[in-house]
Amino acid sequence: IEDLFRDQLSVADMAHLLESIPSRLRDVLWGYIDEDLQGEVLANLHEDIQQGILKRMSPEEFVETTQDVDADDLADLLQQMPVKSSSQALLLMPHDSRRKVEGLLAFPEDTAGGLMNTDMISVRADVTIETVLRYLRKKQLPTPFDVIWVVDRESRYLGSLAVSKLLQSKPEQIVESVMADTPQAIPATADEEEVAQIFERYDLVSAPVVDESGLLIGRITVDDVVDVIIETADHNMMSMAGLDEEDDPFAPVVRSSRDRAVWLGINMATAFIAAAVMSRFEASIAQIVALAVLSPVVASMGGIAGSQTLTLMIRGMATGHITRANLSWMIMRELGVGLINGSLWALVIGSITVIWYGELSLAMVIASAILVNICIAVLSGTLLPFFLKSVDVDPALSGSVILTTLTDVFGFLTFLGLATIFLL
Amino acid sequence: IEDLFRDQLSVADMAHLLESIPSRLRDVLWGYIDEDLQGEVLANLHEDIQQGILKRMSPEEFVETTQDVDADDLADLLQQMPVKSSSQALLLMPHDSRRKVEGLLAFPEDTAGGLMNTDMISVRADVTIETVLRYLRKKQLPTPFDVIWVVDRESRYLGSLAVSKLLQSKPEQIVESVMADTPQAIPATADEEEVAQIFERYDLVSAPVVDESGLLIGRITVDDVVDVIIETADHNMMSMAGLDEEDDPFAPVVRSSRDRAVWLGINMATAFIAAAVMSRFEASIAQIVALAVLSPVVASMGGIAGSQTLTLMIRGMATGHITRANLSWMIMRELGVGLINGSLWALVIGSITVIWYGELSLAMVIASAILVNICIAVLSGTLLPFFLKSVDVDPALSGSVILTTLTDVFGFLTFLGLATIFLL
Ligand SMILES: [Mg+2]
Ligand SMILES: [Mg+2]
Ligand SMILES: [Mg+2]
Ligand SMILES: [Mg+2]
Ligand SMILES: [Mg+2]
Ligand SMILES: [Mg+2]
Ligand SMILES: [Mg+2]
Ligand SMILES: [Mg+2]
Ligand SMILES: [Mg+2]
Ligand SMILES: [Mg+2]
Ligand SMILES: [Mg+2]
Ligand SMILES: [Mg+2]
Ligand SMILES: [Mg+2]
Repeated sequence: IEDLFRDQLSVADMAHLLESIPSRLRDVLWGYIDEDLQGEVLANLHEDIQQGILKRMSPEEFVETTQDVDADDLADLLQQMPVKSSSQALLLMPHDSRRKVEGLLAFPEDTAGGLMNTDMISVRADVTIETVLRYLRKKQLPTPFDVIWVVDRESRYLGSLAVSKLLQSKPEQIVESVMADTPQAIPATADEEEVAQIFERYDLVSAPVVDESGLLIGRITVDDVVDVIIETADHNMMSMAGLDEEDDPFAPVVRSSRDRAVWLGINMATAFIAAAVMSRFEASIAQIVALAVLSPVVASMGGIAGSQTLTLMIRGMATGHITRANLSWMIMRELGVGLINGSLWALVIGSITVIWYGELSLAMVIASAILVNICIAVLSGTLLPFFLKSVDVDPALSGSVILTTLTDVFGFLTFLGLATIFLL
Repeated sequence: IEDLFRDQLSVADMAHLLESIPSRLRDVLWGYIDEDLQGEVLANLHEDIQQGILKRMSPEEFVETTQDVDADDLADLLQQMPVKSSSQALLLMPHDSRRKVEGLLAFPEDTAGGLMNTDMISVRADVTIETVLRYLRKKQLPTPFDVIWVVDRESRYLGSLAVSKLLQSKPEQIVESVMADTPQAIPATADEEEVAQIFERYDLVSAPVVDESGLLIGRITVDDVVDVIIETADHNMMSMAGLDEEDDPFAPVVRSSRDRAVWLGINMATAFIAAAVMSRFEASIAQIVALAVLSPVVASMGGIAGSQTLTLMIRGMATGHITRANLSWMIMRELGVGLINGSLWALVIGSITVIWYGELSLAMVIASAILVNICIAVLSGTLLPFFLKSVDVDPALSGSVILTTLTDVFGFLTFLGLATIFLL
């Protein structure tokens, strides 16, 4: 295994392997990694695992192993260390990599500035292609190398020059005459998700980043954007189950239990809220036990209908298709869907109830409750994510708990309430 | 609006706008799009919306508007049309674009072959850099242009030559001496999700695709891989709510209702299964109404604990971190988490029950049921996705319905069963 690990695997493969094994084995395997590669491997790991390794590294070791790591990744790593160790590590770094990294540390990790790298190539608009080619021969060229940026004499971003264009232009042509005015520069303060949308929509491989005065300060490359897209998707999926996207499935049992306990606690609280509502109708249930059996059916149909709407809304809001501008239209639309599906399943569930219990009045009560609860569910599913976003709460995280609490409570209330009025 | 739509927006923006409006308005806006651009806009739309537009286009119109569309996107569009119209459209195409597209149509949409394009540049390993540069001046270069492929005289893939390397090599150097042997070629039959993992892991911008004999037949570019990643993430999120990732949130109400009804029906069936289990204990409930109130709490705690495990497993299996090799370790681990959290919340819920109902025996019954159900839940959450995958069912689609059915049934069974034995 040692040899395999040393010679056959790329750093990305090593990182993947480390992520696939129990946390205790990780420490053993980590020791087998060539010291020159440890930094790159570290940069490729999940945050959760990075933190574990960083905790056990001295600032000296950190600086030693991360010599070859890209400045953007180095900044990300430093941002995860306690301030004391990261400032110590900064002091130990060679002067120019320290300056580069310090510039990047100023930007929050989840902005364009936090994603960018400073190793981009830029040329002036008024030079010839020949000059550019000569300049490129001497520089260290970054990967991926698909376009270079064109700036004015104050370093303000003007546009781009694709390498394919460069290869097909005449040596005496001026950069200005062959450059393109796309892509648009991304402000360093832009949110990483916005950056991802821009890359996706315009099929970019790299994009220029500018500061507030339009000066070119870095470039973002698609590989880091891919990581953002995957991270965001993971976040949406994991947070729906109350998990963190950085949660390591191989973390020690005690730690995972603690991480997940909170979510179970929150859900227990909501389950007891619903139970408290139901307990108000204990007298009715004692007389008609069928109510106890059928209540969960009413609640769950609302929960399902509401989750469908909620999921559609969260996705639509993330892609930018659903905004406040078409919200009222969405409400009408979802209400339409709710009325149609509510009526349909009211009819079906009503019929099943008649067959099962042979009581028409019970069937009519459950049918009405189903219709009402599904309509409440789709309305909540539409409005809730907007409301949560406006109070700055992540709808993917808390949307479904709140929604199912609402559908449970209203499901029990309408069904048991109507039953108490009409059946007793 | 007409002018804005004509002059200011890129095709990607137009597609985004079309996706953000009700389906009726879409037809109106579609008419405003310049005919030369319609093809590109069409290629940028969601499948669901593409199909709507394609249905109303004659083969002649289709060929007319899609003249400038990339061969890979053209193939995707043709694969969505009824066979009759697509073969008619193929006959109407100019000879060489038809040949190109027909080659691509042979590959299923969700494979490397379905993702690739044929407009790549390849050079022989035994020529000089100068020859390559001269060749590149005459060719139409594809975007993104970051590397070219190196092949032997039989067109078998050998390796890559980065454009940055090309610019910095001496004219008289031989390609073979400066080329890299990465990236590895992707077989045309590889699944699109595998392709995405390769791009993500090795930070690729473009990758070569080969047929079964190693002949270079195309290249995949990162922009299409980004679309696959987003589509897969959407699929995972949407299918958890029984929706299709191509579902259009602005589709007509009747159509959406129909799409969602199936999922509601399936969930109704599972709710009635749980209800049937509960109804076996009607006699016990009639005597102790608290059982009716507390049953949903037991069921829902199991559902939450199980969903957490299931989500972690689905994600881990998608990233390749969790495989059959570490499954038994995962089971032990999740069971550990289940025992810890099960005991914790058994204690809490038992205590609440004592305070609420003042009955120690009831509290002990619910505490045992919580512990048992949470353990069953984490076990099911671990095993279910493996089982479903082995019978070729998508765990993201059906995992959570089956899981909550299990936790409902076992929650009711253990709680009401234990209560019937010990409390009556
Ligand atoms: Mg991040
Ligand atoms: Mg973020
Ligand atoms: Mg950063
Ligand atoms: Mg795109
Ligand atoms: Mg980077
Ligand atoms: Mg990276
Ligand atoms: Mg696809
Ligand atoms: Mg697929
Ligand atoms: Mg295709
Ligand atoms: Mg990557
Ligand atoms: Mg393409
Ligand atoms: Mg594309
Ligand atoms: Mg699809």
